[in-house]
Parts: sequence; structure tokens; C-alpha cells
Amino acid sequence: MDFKTWSSERIGHFEWFAQSTLPQVGTDPKKLIGAMRYAVLNGGKRIRALLTYAAGEACGAEAALLDAGALALECIHGYSLVHDDMPAMDNDTLRRGKPTVHVAYGEATAMLAGDALQTQAFEVLSHAKGEASTLVRMLQTLSHASGVRGMAGGQALDLDMVGQAPSELALMRMQNMKTGALITASVLMGAQAGHWTQLSETAQAGFARYGHALGLLFQVVDDILDCTQATETLGKTAGKDAKDDKPTWVSFKGLEGAQAYAQTLYEEALSALDSIEADSAVAPGAADRLRDIAHLVKGRTH
Amino acid sequence: MDFKTWSSERIGHFEWFAQSTLPQVGTDPKKLIGAMRYAVLNGGKRIRALLTYAAGEACGAEAALLDAGALALECIHGYSLVHDDMPAMDNDTLRRGKPTVHVAYGEATAMLAGDALQTQAFEVLSHAKGEASTLVRMLQTLSHASGVRGMAGGQALDLDMVGQAPSELALMRMQNMKTGALITASVLMGAQAGHWTQLSETAQAGFARYGHALGLLFQVVDDILDCTQATETLGKTAGKDAKDDKPTWVSFKGLEGAQAYAQTLYEEALSALDSIEADSAVAPGAADRLRDIAHLVKGRTH
Repeated sequence: MDFKTWSSERIGHFEWFAQSTLPQVGTDPKKLIGAMRYAVLNGGKRIRALLTYAAGEACGAEAALLDAGALALECIHGYSLVHDDMPAMDNDTLRRGKPTVHVAYGEATAMLAGDALQTQAFEVLSHAKGEASTLVRMLQTLSHASGVRGMAGGQALDLDMVGQAPSELALMRMQNMKTGALITASVLMGAQAGHWTQLSETAQAGFARYGHALGLLFQVVDDILDCTQATETLGKTAGKDAKDDKPTWVSFKGLEGAQAYAQTLYEEALSALDSIEADSAVAPGAADRLRDIAHLVKGRTH
Repeated sequence: MDFKTWSSERIGHFEWFAQSTLPQVGTDPKKLIGAMRYAVLNGGKRIRALLTYAAGEACGAEAALLDAGALALECIHGYSLVHDDMPAMDNDTLRRGKPTVHVAYGEATAMLAGDALQTQAFEVLSHAKGEASTLVRMLQTLSHASGVRGMAGGQALDLDMVGQAPSELALMRMQNMKTGALITASVLMGAQAGHWTQLSETAQAGFARYGHALGLLFQVVDDILDCTQATETLGKTAGKDAKDDKPTWVSFKGLEGAQAYAQTLYEEALSALDSIEADSAVAPGAADRLRDIAHLVKGRTH
């Protein structure tokens, strides 16, 4: 099966799972549930879900546990977008070509929908079928990556940087927290759903290294797209970073420098995968889907 | 040891645990961490923490696991207050006699602090020392009580009710979700940290019944205080419910009716505790602290 077929099958399955697992339309509180579903079931790229499936399949994980992990991750990602888009934060009105949640549902419901989506992530994962010790490890990974030392903390550092001239190291650190931590968690949670405890330390570290490189690659490409693509292609307001005077890899290294950096990160990600496949508990070629995803992230246009 | 000594010892211990377990002052992201600590370490009544300690001690739970459960609950409670106080929701500027988080730190940081406190709850609990199956059960209880079918969902129903004339049943349902679910979870998580699986179904149901009655009692008393106490005593703006045209037990039943209802709920809570102590796995008198807390909630003046 080629990557395109695999990823569209996995995404199709994930959308069905998310549709049927999220609180159902027509049940109370109707408006809140409507906003939660609108935020998550919106045709996102599902990079995090795909990473979980790919890493999990490399480690022989059960499909049902990967479904729960993938949905938990997409709920966390979705909640962060809802809150980031609000007037108190980025004040954005367009997301994937559609009105943002606070525009469609009002600010109070948007805030609550973000709150409830975060809870939903932990509810789905804590209720998943699997060994308790496996669930706890995945919950530890998800909560650490989402909180003050991860995504939310990175968002706070990002706010503090607006109008500042951060060092390259400070920018990298912020992005490793804001975007990288959850990308890395997506990879780790997939592997943890499988035979994680049988892996060598080198292979475990390889999954984390791949996640770090991919997370940063994702952000560098995002910055490049923000200044090279039109609003219609992106499905969100283009050129916003420069307008808001936000530090980005392009403002820092120039466009060509950012493109070269993306290539370096891509190669780092592939090298980490080689170290995973050196483990006897991982089948040769088991990491191919993760290689494909790195290729996809590097080459994406929106 | 009398109740006053017990509760001030437990609260003192809890404050030390929270102070030393929450992200530390002076580490990045400084402003976010400052806001998170400001929101939680604010001299709250710690009813939820006390319920966890009381129920846990009735079931022979380890102190360290109760600490983690209690902090998780107070982080969830704290996050909900931060977000509820924001301009998009209740727009309140005073909480326990001090400026609310968005007044002290700005709206963007307040939103992030609420978000990160919710994550912190799941991070603290998933990293606690205890059997994995116990942690998973407590995480299931906490996440279900906090989310769309619990606290966040109740908050959404509450928003929908402003200016409406809800039935008594609708008001009760909203409050059972908005306030009652987390109060009940506080009781259940304490018991689950102990020998929960050895309890009879009657005793397990007794903990839940006690929680439900106490949660509703808490809200009825809150409504009574809002219209009988001065702002200085409450530490928050008094008379706000009537001003906002919010449905309350007082607007519904009148002041005397609400007071009689509080007495009924108090008696229901005590009766549930009797059914717990009928279990051979629970020592006679083990539920006395829970009795004391019901008495405290009924008689509180702020």
C-alpha cells in the first residue's frame, strides 16, 4: 500500500471514530457540543493522528488504543486553536477557510468549547481499552506535552515575544514547547500504545528525536508558508506574522535560510528513524510511514 | 481530634503540597506560572480537597495519593473560576477579596493560565504514586466530572439560562453538572484512592449520593448567601445574581423555601453516610469527617 492510500484510509477511519465518539449532536448542552464538533471535525490535516497511527503500527499497537490516543491529541490540538483564535489572543476570524469558533458561536461558548475539548482528550484516553499502566504512561505524556512545560507554556512565551527580538535559541525553545511538544507526544503515544517497554533506550530516544525534529520542521514550514502563500491556499489569513511583528524563522534567517534549515531538520528526522530500526524489536521498514510523514510535512503547501 | 483541628491540619498540609508541587516562581514562562499560582494559592475554602481527604481516610487511602487527587481537583476548580470570571463569561473583577486573574494579569494570560491549570490537574494525577488501575479510575472520574457532561457542560447550560425562566428540574440539572459533578468527584476520588474495590455497591453508591446532595446543598447555600451577605463578607460582588437576572434557588423558591431545601439536602447527605457505614469494610464513625463537612457547608457564611 502506498503512503497516500494508507494515510487516506487512516484519516477516513479517524474521522468516523471522532464523529461517533465525540458527544452527539442533539444532546444537551447542544450549543456547546455543536461548537466542540465544529472545532474538531473541520477537515484538519490530522498530522498528529497520522503520527500516532504510524508510530503505533511500527510498534504493534492495538488499533483501538491508537484511535483513542489520536482523538485525544486532535482534541488538545483543536482546543488550542479555538483559544488561540480568540480576540484576547490572536484575534483571527478564519481557520481552514471557515469562520473561527468564536465568530460562529460567540466568545463565551468558544472558551467553554476549548475547555471541554481539553477535558474530552483526557476522558477519551482514560476510558480507552488497554492495560492501565499503558494508559497512565500515555496520559503522562499527553498532559506533560500540553501544559505549562509544553504547548500552553510555549504559547505564553510566544505572547511575551511579540514585538521583541528573541535570540534563535529563544525562538527554538518557544516553538519546541508550543508546537513540538504535542507533535513529539503524538509519536511517543503511538509507540507507547505498542511494545514500548521492550524497546531499547536508543529506540525510545529515537522516537523522541524524530518528534523533536519533525515538530520544529512543521513550524519552520508554517513560517515559510505564511509569507509565500495566498490566504485562499492557506485557508487562514496569510502574511499575519509579519503584520503582527511576530518573530518567525523567515524574519530570523531570511526565506532561503529558513528553507535550508527545513532541509536539515528533515534529514535529522530520517536519521532518528534509522536508529529506531536498528532495534531488534522493530521490523525493518516499520518506520517507513514516519519517513513518509516527514516528507509530507517538508513539502506541504498549506 | 475535633473537626476544626483536623481541617486546619489538612488544609495547612494541602497548601504546602500545592505550593511545592505547582510550577515554581522564577522559572519560565514566568508570567503564566505567576498567574497559575495566583489562581490556585489564594486562600480558597478547599472544600474539594477536604472532601477527598475525608473520603480517602474513611477508606484507608495513602496520604500521598490523596494529596495528588486533592491538588488535581483544586486545579480544575481554580481553572474554572479563572475562565468564568473573564469578560466573555461573568465579567467579574473581584474574587475572594482580590482582583480576578484577568484583571491582575490580562486576558490572554488568564485564558492560558486556566488552560494550563486544567492540564496541570491531569499531569499531577497521572504522575502520582499509586497502582495504575487506581490512577486510571481516578482520572476517569475527574475527566468525566469536569467535561461536557459535567462542569463545563453545566456552565454552558447556565449561560443558556440567563434571562430565561427554567423549571426547577432544569435548574437542578444545570447545578448538578456545574457544581455538583466536581463535588461528587472529590468524594469519589478520595474513596477510589482507598479500598474502593472492596466496598459493596451500596457503599459505593452512598459516596455518590452524599456527593450529589452536598453539591446541590453547596449551590443552594451559595444562592442564599448571594442575596443575604455583603460584598465584604463574601469576598466577591454580592447581589450579582439578581442584577444579572440569573435563575437561583432563591428566585425560584423564595428565601425561606431555599433555606428549607438546604435542610432537606443536608439530611439526605447524612442519610447517605449512614448507608456507607453499614458496610463491613468501613469502620464505624469513619464517615464522621464527611458529616462535619456537610455541617460546615450548610452553615457557611461566605
